[in-house]
Amino acid sequence: MLQSAPIDAPEDRPLILLSNDDGIDAPGIRALAEALDGLGTLAVVAPMREQSAVGHAITVRDPMRAEPWPFQIPSGPVWARAVGGTPADCVKLGCQRLLPRRPDLVVSGINHGPNTAVNVIYSGTVSAATEATILGIDAVAVSHEAWGLGGDMRGAQRWARRIAARVLAGGLPPGVLLNVNVPDVEADALKGVELTRQARARWEEEFEERFDPMKRPYYWLGGRFVNLDEGLDTDLHAMSEGFVSITPIHYDLTAYEHLERLAGWDWAGDGTEA
Amino acid sequence: MLQSAPIDAPEDRPLILLSNDDGIDAPGIRALAEALDGLGTLAVVAPMREQSAVGHAITVRDPMRAEPWPFQIPSGPVWARAVGGTPADCVKLGCQRLLPRRPDLVVSGINHGPNTAVNVIYSGTVSAATEATILGIDAVAVSHEAWGLGGDMRGAQRWARRIAARVLAGGLPPGVLLNVNVPDVEADALKGVELTRQARARWEEEFEERFDPMKRPYYWLGGRFVNLDEGLDTDLHAMSEGFVSITPIHYDLTAYEHLERLAGWDWAGDGTEA
Repeated sequence: MLQSAPIDAPEDRPLILLSNDDGIDAPGIRALAEALDGLGTLAVVAPMREQSAVGHAITVRDPMRAEPWPFQIPSGPVWARAVGGTPADCVKLGCQRLLPRRPDLVVSGINHGPNTAVNVIYSGTVSAATEATILGIDAVAVSHEAWGLGGDMRGAQRWARRIAARVLAGGLPPGVLLNVNVPDVEADALKGVELTRQARARWEEEFEERFDPMKRPYYWLGGRFVNLDEGLDTDLHAMSEGFVSITPIHYDLTAYEHLERLAGWDWAGDGTEA
Repeated sequence: MLQSAPIDAPEDRPLILLSNDDGIDAPGIRALAEALDGLGTLAVVAPMREQSAVGHAITVRDPMRAEPWPFQIPSGPVWARAVGGTPADCVKLGCQRLLPRRPDLVVSGINHGPNTAVNVIYSGTVSAATEATILGIDAVAVSHEAWGLGGDMRGAQRWARRIAARVLAGGLPPGVLLNVNVPDVEADALKGVELTRQARARWEEEFEERFDPMKRPYYWLGGRFVNLDEGLDTDLHAMSEGFVSITPIHYDLTAYEHLERLAGWDWAGDGTEA
C-alpha cells in the first residue's frame, strides 16, 4: 500500500522522523523502524539511493522528488517518502515541507558500518541528525559496527529504542545531537553505554592508479583507518570494550582554545607584500 | 601549454596546493593563484565542475580522473589538474598521489560567497581545507562576501596573501585550520583582521512545490539566512564592521561541555522496552 496522502500525526503522540544514508530500502532503516515501533508516530523520509560518504552535502541547484514508498514493518505500513537527494536534504524537506508539524525527534540509521572518530565528518548518517539539530529538533544518529547489509542488528535496535525513549523523555541540550555507535556483538553481550569523545584518527589513503584502454590514468581511493588516540574515553575505545558509544556532538566548529593565541599574531605585516 | 609531466617542486621552496569548490575555471581560484604568486611553488588540484554545498563529501564508489588543465596567471603557467570529484577528493588525491611530496600549505578558495556561521558545514571550500588538516597539513579557506563570479576580489587577494605568508612562517596548531571571510568592500577600506567564532544562525527554508506535466510534485529549496547571534565576537559581526574574519576551526565535533551531564543519565531503564 502506498500512502500518497499526508501522514496522520496526532498531536498527543510524539512524531519521530527516520532517515539514513544507505537508502530507503536498506535493512538498517527498517530495523530502526521496528525498534522504535510504539514510541510514537513514525515517518520515514530517506534517500532513494545510497548516499554514503556524502557528508553534509545538500541539493541547491536541482529540484527534488519525494515519492510515496512502500515501507512495511510487522505492525503495519509506515508512512514513507523516498527523496532524490542527500540525507540532509531528506531532513530539511521532511521537517519543513512533507510533515504536517515539526517532529519531536529525528533518528538516523541504523547505519551499516560505524561512524566513529574522523568518519563523523564524512557521514551522511550523522549529517541527517545534524541537520535536525540545526533546525532545533532533538536528533540521534545510530550506527552499527558491522559493514555490509547482512549484520545482526538486534543489539543496535535495543539501544536505539532505549536512547530514543530517553531523549523523548528528557530532551537534549540545544545544539547537541547524539552520535551512537553499537559494537557488532550479540545484544545480551553489550555491556551498557559509555559517553565518549571523538577519537583522533585518520585514513592512510593510497590511490591506486590504473589506465583505461586509451592509456589514460584514473584513480581508485583505497586505504586503511588508523587510530592515533590511546585515550580510554574515546568512541573507538568504548566500542572495543563492548560498550555502546554515545558521543554528544555539535556543529560549532570554532577551535575556542586557540582564539586568543591567534589573535596575538601579527596578521598584516609579513614583509612579503606583492 | 598543458603540463602532463609531474610538477617540479624544489625542496627549498614551499609547495602550496590550491583548491576550491567553484571549479577549476572559476575566477576565484585564479585570483588566489595570482595573490599567492611568489610565496612558493604553486600547484592547483580542483574540481572539474562546480561543487558548492557538497560539504565533506568524498568519492568512494567510483574512480576519479585527474586531467592536466591549462591554468595561466600573469607570471606564467601553473601546474594544474582538474579532478572529477569533490573538494575533499581533490586534496586527498593531490596530497597523496599527484604531488611529489606533501605540500607545506593548502589554500582553498577564493570562494564566490561567504562561508560564515552554519554555512561552514555545507561548504566545499572549507572541507578542502579541513581535509588537509586531517592529513596534518596547514590549511586556510578563503571566501569573499560577494556572490556570483563578477566581484572585485582585490581585498580578498591581499589578505589571502598576508594570511598564507603568516601561516607559512609560523605554522598552525595541530588539527586547526583558518576559515577566512573577506567583506565585499574596496581593499583599502578593509579595517584589518578579527579572530572570531562561528555565529549561531540558521536557514529558514521554504520548499516550493511545483508540478511536472504529469502532475507529479517536485520541490525547490529556497529560504533566507537568519542570524540568531548578537555577539560582537562572531564571524558575521566582524564582516559587518568591515574586518576580515578569521575563525580557527577544527573537526573534533565532541560537545565536551555536555559529556559529564549526559553520562549521569539513566540510559538503560526507560520502561518502554519492546
